Amino acid sequence: MSYVKNHIDAMSPYVPGEQPAGPRRIVKLNTNENPYPPSPQVRDVLRSVLCEELRVYPRPDARKFIEAVAETLRLPREMLLAANGSDNLLLMIARAAAGPGRRVAWLQPTFPFYETQARIEASEILEVPFEDDFAFPLQGLIDAQPAVAFIASPNSPTGTAATTDQLETLAKAMQGRGLLVIDEAYADFSDAHALELPLRYDNVIVLRTLSKGYSLAGLRLGFAVAQPALLGQLWKTKEIYNVGVLAERIGAVAIRDQAHLRENVAKIRASREKLTVNLRARGWTVWPSQANFLLARPAGGDARGAFETLKAGGVLVRYFDKPPMDDKLRITVGTDEQCAALLRALDARS
Amino acid sequence: MSYVKNHIDAMSPYVPGEQPAGPRRIVKLNTNENPYPPSPQVRDVLRSVLCEELRVYPRPDARKFIEAVAETLRLPREMLLAANGSDNLLLMIARAAAGPGRRVAWLQPTFPFYETQARIEASEILEVPFEDDFAFPLQGLIDAQPAVAFIASPNSPTGTAATTDQLETLAKAMQGRGLLVIDEAYADFSDAHALELPLRYDNVIVLRTLSKGYSLAGLRLGFAVAQPALLGQLWKTKEIYNVGVLAERIGAVAIRDQAHLRENVAKIRASREKLTVNLRARGWTVWPSQANFLLARPAGGDARGAFETLKAGGVLVRYFDKPPMDDKLRITVGTDEQCAALLRALDARS
Repeated sequence: MSYVKNHIDAMSPYVPGEQPAGPRRIVKLNTNENPYPPSPQVRDVLRSVLCEELRVYPRPDARKFIEAVAETLRLPREMLLAANGSDNLLLMIARAAAGPGRRVAWLQPTFPFYETQARIEASEILEVPFEDDFAFPLQGLIDAQPAVAFIASPNSPTGTAATTDQLETLAKAMQGRGLLVIDEAYADFSDAHALELPLRYDNVIVLRTLSKGYSLAGLRLGFAVAQPALLGQLWKTKEIYNVGVLAERIGAVAIRDQAHLRENVAKIRASREKLTVNLRARGWTVWPSQANFLLARPAGGDARGAFETLKAGGVLVRYFDKPPMDDKLRITVGTDEQCAALLRALDARS
Repeated sequence: MSYVKNHIDAMSPYVPGEQPAGPRRIVKLNTNENPYPPSPQVRDVLRSVLCEELRVYPRPDARKFIEAVAETLRLPREMLLAANGSDNLLLMIARAAAGPGRRVAWLQPTFPFYETQARIEASEILEVPFEDDFAFPLQGLIDAQPAVAFIASPNSPTGTAATTDQLETLAKAMQGRGLLVIDEAYADFSDAHALELPLRYDNVIVLRTLSKGYSLAGLRLGFAVAQPALLGQLWKTKEIYNVGVLAERIGAVAIRDQAHLRENVAKIRASREKLTVNLRARGWTVWPSQANFLLARPAGGDARGAFETLKAGGVLVRYFDKPPMDDKLRITVGTDEQCAALLRALDARS
């Protein structure tokens, strides 16, 4: 017998990408981290924070961070909710809005944690496959009539993004019936974003994280943008104090340092184009990416072989074991030096 | 129409104790924080941590912290699960084991967040009142036959604790049928604890936090102790990376500094006895406390009046608006100086 609900007992846990232990000799291009350090002001906060600040409970609304986000992105404070990473927001949304008889939809392939969340809530689920060449399946999503749609844009592992027009059309079609969750974890690297949609649609939630663009994956900090009535519902499902004092303070200085963000993003976008060209020159298929990683298929499609070759050469990328992804790799865009190391490791096998 | 589930729409959010903004002139005895600073080694970690560590994702299992807990408390690593505060653990337990047709029980009065969690999961709920003078209602809990029992021991706001024998009897009665969650947030201040029960009972989860004894409420860090099979179920409902790098590193040094913990706990226990005597000398009823706070009833029972007097005198304590608690105050045990300030503020009104 099990002490938990039957559908939880039957579930498999989410398995994250490998985090190699020990000294980091490895070129780690498998979990879409930013290769550049966070804002130098993060260091100043770490050096100046007082233990006294850790002694007391944080503000339940991570106020200092939220104020910094509001000023930087020019959004009303009442439309912002801070969280212990985007995962924490996905969990709140699923708890509030998913469940038996409520259909949850997502793209296929996408971030597998959406499925985890839907399954925990015993939701009806619907995976909407991309159209040819990973074109955004707008009509398929509209036809799905979901209670919740989790749309990563840019999407992982494809690197493709929906246009703001497509997302607005979907928001309009779902209005009054379902929540459109736009997970913009990678939006710092893309040409467009959908931050203005929650201002006009009461059913849109945009999720942002400081893990990618701001180089703070280890901090655990993200935020949601939505209308106050909807945030009030999510607030009911959150931990009392979900964001600690250090994340509140570090997040505030990091998001205000937009110059640092822009500089790193420009470098990564340039490396992304260079790596695309260099892989294509070796016969690889590389899909145009709006994110800080590439989806790429080796000539011949032996992605597992390429993964093993790279690993043996000290370069870790992400290989997905299941069709239709098992002939492709997801490669995080590192520094130019890291990308060169990847190419060298590939060339060494030929 | 609402975009969320009906029972979420109908819920009220949890309201935490007041966190006064601005400079801390106030004597803050309302949220059971520790008046003494955390281990001095916490400061060393903050000064030495590298931004590079924040750039990458943390380990999903907060390994360094878990290793430190295992060594310090002499528990097997496989019986430990780290979390973003006890709230995060309560959420995981509720998601895994609460739900329609599954009864969730707790003491009345207790930490209101148990009810929040049960209501989010649309569980059948049962509040088991204490017996006379806040004696532990063992038979009432056994008779409740819950799928999940959330037992805070020591309990807030009563300050009373169940004996380990009572908890073991309850665990035995629930075995094969329900989960016994023993929330030991305040156990660092009590004469006994139940850490050995999960070693013998597959249905017991003990929760610990670093917020109280270790003076790290602002950090957000806690852990669960249970058998591996049960932790495997909870693992399915957790965020991928629920504990950040800073919490992992700071938590590891804090829990290893048991000398610092013992010293602060001894001071707080001594102040607790002194404050009890001093309030009783003023005609107050004070229940014997195993925690870092007192439940106390002013002579005459005008708790709201006493709360207002104290607030006017710059001392913040916790007043609960509803019977049977509305004639009592919950007073966090501060330093001797803070307790003296409280008594002065009380005496000033007479």
